[in-house]
Amino acid sequence: MKFDVGASIAVLERTPATLRALLDGLPEGWTQGNEGPDTFSPFDVVGHLIDGEETDWIPRARILLARQPDGRFSPYDRFRHRTRNAGRSLTSLLEELDRLRGDNVSLLRSWRLTDTELNLQAQHPTLGAVSLRQLIATWVAHDLGHLAQVARVMAKQYRAEVGPWIRFLPVLTDHDVPRS
Amino acid sequence: MKFDVGASIAVLERTPATLRALLDGLPEGWTQGNEGPDTFSPFDVVGHLIDGEETDWIPRARILLARQPDGRFSPYDRFRHRTRNAGRSLTSLLEELDRLRGDNVSLLRSWRLTDTELNLQAQHPTLGAVSLRQLIATWVAHDLGHLAQVARVMAKQYRAEVGPWIRFLPVLTDHDVPRS
Repeated sequence: MKFDVGASIAVLERTPATLRALLDGLPEGWTQGNEGPDTFSPFDVVGHLIDGEETDWIPRARILLARQPDGRFSPYDRFRHRTRNAGRSLTSLLEELDRLRGDNVSLLRSWRLTDTELNLQAQHPTLGAVSLRQLIATWVAHDLGHLAQVARVMAKQYRAEVGPWIRFLPVLTDHDVPRS
Repeated sequence: MKFDVGASIAVLERTPATLRALLDGLPEGWTQGNEGPDTFSPFDVVGHLIDGEETDWIPRARILLARQPDGRFSPYDRFRHRTRNAGRSLTSLLEELDRLRGDNVSLLRSWRLTDTELNLQAQHPTLGAVSLRQLIATWVAHDLGHLAQVARVMAKQYRAEVGPWIRFLPVLTDHDVPRS
């Protein structure tokens, strides 16, 4: 697929409702389980996506649109959510993600980005030069990667319960080395 | 997590709405793309889940509940959906999955399964003896595995568009050897 702003927004605007449909009201065994030390539970993933809305995607897009070729991004703190969301309910985080994402998608749409703007570049702290087009494509793929992670982490909570069927369920043996 | 019928139903009943929130109305580039020959697109996955509702989970549960220790399952035809759903719209398949799953979850709930029933066994065509508890746990993990697959397959449609960020997006390089 070639990059397209409208097709990207079509995914970005669906993520909060997808996560609510999947997670809201589930027993905590599903939403708080993870894949091991320093890996994310579904609760953690929702918090991490909120961090992205507040600190990553739109702030980085603004740096790119400021047209300073030496513009530099701040690193994405992948564990900010741990202290930010202590004691919060998953329902309230899902609502917050819905609101923040809705605002950010409205803003993104309002920019009516041109090819010239999509080609603007800035400096990623470890990856070097990246473009606004790549940033938005990454925002989409990042959502989908974490949705895949949520489903995988949930499936693994039943790893010991499926018996011999584990052979036909590769999702249960994916990523045996834990990662967040 | 220990197996629990209620916790299993909590996931099973959410799958149709999750897939609708994620997929309904998306551009076809997202819903028809796959990972290579003989792999599933999101459209294919919805068809495959419908096949499971019609031919696999409940029919196998009925064989188990019939208490015939030599009861044998029919194999799950993983490509039945290809001919069944030719020319169908994704929206109509999502509606059909919602209806079939709703009926099957109502039936499962109505059985009020006891531990004795959950321990009933039958013969899987390749795995040997399996229990009703393992069948229901597998139904849940199978849903979640295919949801993870849908998200992964969608993310890969932007694999060439994320530029240097591919290093931070393991979902784009998972399962380089295609599978359905």
